[in-house]
Amino acid sequence: MRSNGDRISNWCDKALGYRFSDAELLNRALTHRSASAENNERLEFLGDAVLGLVIADAMYESKADAPEGILSRFRSELVCGETLAEIGREIAVGPQLIMGSGEYRSGGYQRKSVLANAVEAVIGAVFLDGGFVAAREVILRFYAGRLASLPDEDELKDPKTRLQEYLQSRQLVPPDYELSDVSGAAHAQTFVVSCCIGSLELVTSGTGTSRRRAEQAAATAALEELGHG
Amino acid sequence: MRSNGDRISNWCDKALGYRFSDAELLNRALTHRSASAENNERLEFLGDAVLGLVIADAMYESKADAPEGILSRFRSELVCGETLAEIGREIAVGPQLIMGSGEYRSGGYQRKSVLANAVEAVIGAVFLDGGFVAAREVILRFYAGRLASLPDEDELKDPKTRLQEYLQSRQLVPPDYELSDVSGAAHAQTFVVSCCIGSLELVTSGTGTSRRRAEQAAATAALEELGHG
Repeated sequence: MRSNGDRISNWCDKALGYRFSDAELLNRALTHRSASAENNERLEFLGDAVLGLVIADAMYESKADAPEGILSRFRSELVCGETLAEIGREIAVGPQLIMGSGEYRSGGYQRKSVLANAVEAVIGAVFLDGGFVAAREVILRFYAGRLASLPDEDELKDPKTRLQEYLQSRQLVPPDYELSDVSGAAHAQTFVVSCCIGSLELVTSGTGTSRRRAEQAAATAALEELGHG
Repeated sequence: MRSNGDRISNWCDKALGYRFSDAELLNRALTHRSASAENNERLEFLGDAVLGLVIADAMYESKADAPEGILSRFRSELVCGETLAEIGREIAVGPQLIMGSGEYRSGGYQRKSVLANAVEAVIGAVFLDGGFVAAREVILRFYAGRLASLPDEDELKDPKTRLQEYLQSRQLVPPDYELSDVSGAAHAQTFVVSCCIGSLELVTSGTGTSRRRAEQAAATAALEELGHG
């Protein structure tokens, strides 16, 4: 019969390609706060910072011509909760989690935020156990496919920037954005903004929970109208 | 006669306690965007991430009992622009900066954001030149005094939390916060919130650019009234 420790250690060998000197650290990284006060939240904090640096460094190296703003957007995309939850599913961290029975029964082991946090905590644990170089290796293993297929820089630009560049490349004046409506209670307002491109006789409209979001939505609609959505 | 390179290299020995293998990296870290397209902005992005990890790790080690939220607040305080600009002045990075003459004449070499960015860029350059361990040493040298005199955990708690804990410790019910006024244009609103502690017949008021900020201001006023500001 195999113990729980063996199971976790086998999973770790396979998923991380890393063997812990201090198995307790790995256990801690897999312990959800529903199971114990000795849970993975502090390791998650640390792992988030390790991940941030390793991905920043990878962006710096692989996008040698990209300005800081683009590096930053690439990184945000790669370290967001959504991506981390995907990685959590890929390495099947869910079934290894130690959680309270209520949390477990309600499906907590497959919840995105739980998976994302566990991935960060595991990274933090490797950093403490084996240092920066070991943690970097594990992260680059998690991200190998994603780093090999990074999107084009243009795709990461926001709609307002893309619209502006599109118009500029055709020697057209930039669009005018105008706030046309605000509604809703003070803490939950809805903004409506129009985007007007006089030279093309095009007016589109966008809605959002902030003026900025509404402007981006209006720009997206304009790009779609222009066949560049 | 000493060359510019000698001057920078002597400054670096003294300020960082680190000698670069690749002097070009140090030059780049000291080049403001007003001087060249080959400036320090990408290094700043990288250095920010290095700093984030080193300080996260230092918090993890030195605040062994603090929950994630407190670690995160300690770190924010330590890596904010204000602190980085202080460090920039302490190591006298300003006079080493390479900037456009307009920017220089307008006093750019002593502007806080310029100093803060240069400190991050220098950290990024050390990381690339000497690796994580070398960068950590430089950062811990910059932060030695600050890490030795970290504030009490309580001081970092936000006013609403401190007020709630104060009342709880006296078995009093938590305060009621009520929005009493919103004014100003949609994108520049001012919120006024009252904080009411029925059991103490105390009502205070706070103003802010968001409901949350107004609540914190009202809680601060209540703490002051109670002699716990």
